[in-house]
Amino acid sequence: MDIYEESVELHKKNGGKIATKLKVSLNNKKDLSLAYSPGVAGVSRAISEDISKAKELTIKKNTVAIVSDGSAILGLGNLGPHAALPVMEGKAALFKHFADVDAFPLCIDTQDVDEIVDFVKKVAPTFGGINLEDISAPRCFEVEEKLRKELDIPVMHDDQHGTAVVVLAGLMNALELRGSKKEDIKVVINGVGAAGVAITKILLDWGVDNIVLCDSQGIICHERTGLNDTKVKLMKVTNGDGVCGMLRDALEGADVFVGVSVAEALKPQALKIMNDKPIIFALANPEPEIMPDIAKEAGAFVVATGRSDFPNQVNNVLAFPGIFRGALDNGIAQFEDEMFVRAAEAIASCVQNPTTEMIIPDPFDEKVSKVVANVIK
Amino acid sequence: MDIYEESVELHKKNGGKIATKLKVSLNNKKDLSLAYSPGVAGVSRAISEDISKAKELTIKKNTVAIVSDGSAILGLGNLGPHAALPVMEGKAALFKHFADVDAFPLCIDTQDVDEIVDFVKKVAPTFGGINLEDISAPRCFEVEEKLRKELDIPVMHDDQHGTAVVVLAGLMNALELRGSKKEDIKVVINGVGAAGVAITKILLDWGVDNIVLCDSQGIICHERTGLNDTKVKLMKVTNGDGVCGMLRDALEGADVFVGVSVAEALKPQALKIMNDKPIIFALANPEPEIMPDIAKEAGAFVVATGRSDFPNQVNNVLAFPGIFRGALDNGIAQFEDEMFVRAAEAIASCVQNPTTEMIIPDPFDEKVSKVVANVIK
Repeated sequence: MDIYEESVELHKKNGGKIATKLKVSLNNKKDLSLAYSPGVAGVSRAISEDISKAKELTIKKNTVAIVSDGSAILGLGNLGPHAALPVMEGKAALFKHFADVDAFPLCIDTQDVDEIVDFVKKVAPTFGGINLEDISAPRCFEVEEKLRKELDIPVMHDDQHGTAVVVLAGLMNALELRGSKKEDIKVVINGVGAAGVAITKILLDWGVDNIVLCDSQGIICHERTGLNDTKVKLMKVTNGDGVCGMLRDALEGADVFVGVSVAEALKPQALKIMNDKPIIFALANPEPEIMPDIAKEAGAFVVATGRSDFPNQVNNVLAFPGIFRGALDNGIAQFEDEMFVRAAEAIASCVQNPTTEMIIPDPFDEKVSKVVANVIK
Repeated sequence: MDIYEESVELHKKNGGKIATKLKVSLNNKKDLSLAYSPGVAGVSRAISEDISKAKELTIKKNTVAIVSDGSAILGLGNLGPHAALPVMEGKAALFKHFADVDAFPLCIDTQDVDEIVDFVKKVAPTFGGINLEDISAPRCFEVEEKLRKELDIPVMHDDQHGTAVVVLAGLMNALELRGSKKEDIKVVINGVGAAGVAITKILLDWGVDNIVLCDSQGIICHERTGLNDTKVKLMKVTNGDGVCGMLRDALEGADVFVGVSVAEALKPQALKIMNDKPIIFALANPEPEIMPDIAKEAGAFVVATGRSDFPNQVNNVLAFPGIFRGALDNGIAQFEDEMFVRAAEAIASCVQNPTTEMIIPDPFDEKVSKVVANVIK
């Protein structure tokens, strides 16, 4: 039985991975009269007089919706809301396990930007935060941007910021080990989907000046036509030298490669074009852009992947539980981009003595979510 | 501290009444790879090939959404979605406690029929059933009717059918005690909101022929003008004698009074107009249409109320947990009206030796939800 079949068996046995649990007892009439009618009328009245009390007296205090349209499930593509359910349940389980956040999956039957926005706005009274998940680019950018503007509870698309935060955390430690400064490095990002865009933004926010983006057609530069709005916007703040060409051309003189693209996108020879001791994030799943042993052989200083069977795993679970824990506990109204930079610093700080095999904390390091939560304010 | 203040304190202490709970362990890499990436991809693929597998492999198997627009919260009126939250959480707690159904509140920010319908349709992939709650009449009828037609998961507005099922259960036992047949009795229902309409329908379905409806303006009859669609439809199947007038006129020769209206709507003298040994359901909350001791003094044979401090409490908790337990376990695609009649028979059967003080089971009688679940198929 392979891991996929084994997982299906586990899901069949359990019929889902999360359940509800009572936080009050319901064993007698008194219990019932306090948790439900008539006592609960007092709670409803208190909230109707001051809506902000919902955050104190109800599940809104500790509950996050995980909203997905099923359009970009893991690496599987657009399989729709039903197929998204087991993934979102898994996410809910991680939220609970790593940060005691009560998260609930809402897999929805629409892939229209305005309808998704409208749906989330309607359900927002119930929740203390919104985690958008597995919504394909470029729709995900618009959905998140609109909701961040219109809602008074924090909204984050994890495929963007969760990944970006952990990449930045790893990069911080890697640069320190290498003795490089963020102002001096050149970073090439291959892949301009949800993660690629967010990584670009967080690196700019942190202070990396020299970033070149590539998609499957090559470098995002002024000669390109038919670029979507997101890419046009990013073109204005990246690729300062105005280089055009393919990935190979971008890599000339680069210090860091971040791949959020496809298997084998980075050839070993390409590392020779980069500066000495290049830092490689090969995050394509399950097959990275280059295998760690091959990258090392070709001169890589540090290699990070998305996989748990290699060192330096970029795993969102280091970010999102703590980010929402902090958002709920500190009562923030909306995420700000600088919070994500602080979250990366917090994660980086959890590795006490970074080495090239350990620039990112272990996903099971229990202190990470607490340290991250403290800086989300 | 009164019961309302005590309830507020309980809610403050707990910050909500329900939480999520893991059904799988997440203690090591193997756990993570089965519950989440990469193993969960196998589950997503299996569901994308056959959507019905979501009912077997995900929370859809055991999870019900409790959807409310906050327009008719308890007896408090239209307080909006935030104020509805503590009530819906209480309901979710009851679902879990009495029938091990994982129910989750969704309090939504719209009171437009089509928008509510649209919202529920979008979120339906996630759930195994939809419990509509505290949506005011007559919008609730339209919302439920549309959703029952359009969805392939069972939808029930509990304020209608939960109450109706328990009233019918009580009436079955009361009539047996009184030695009356359903074909021979005259029933007056005072109040034509969500509960009144559903009680009318279930009595008709069960086989009560002679029903007269009253609202605050008097008997629903051909002389009335400005009646809403629901009342016009009901006029055609009730009040066969075409009586017009006020409640007092309706009560002449009646055997049963069902009040879902307001405090003190039934005067003691009015019982003298009814047939001997009248059966009284005085369900207004917290003050019934007539107090039980006064009704008894005026000749009532049986009195039921909505209150836990009198005998014969009409409490929905006897109905909805078992109804959804059965719906989920038996995989029904949609509720049918005859299921509600069977649920009433099941509840009535749980009282082994009915007396005038015990026509309805105790709300804490644990066998009820199991007996009810068995007939929902």
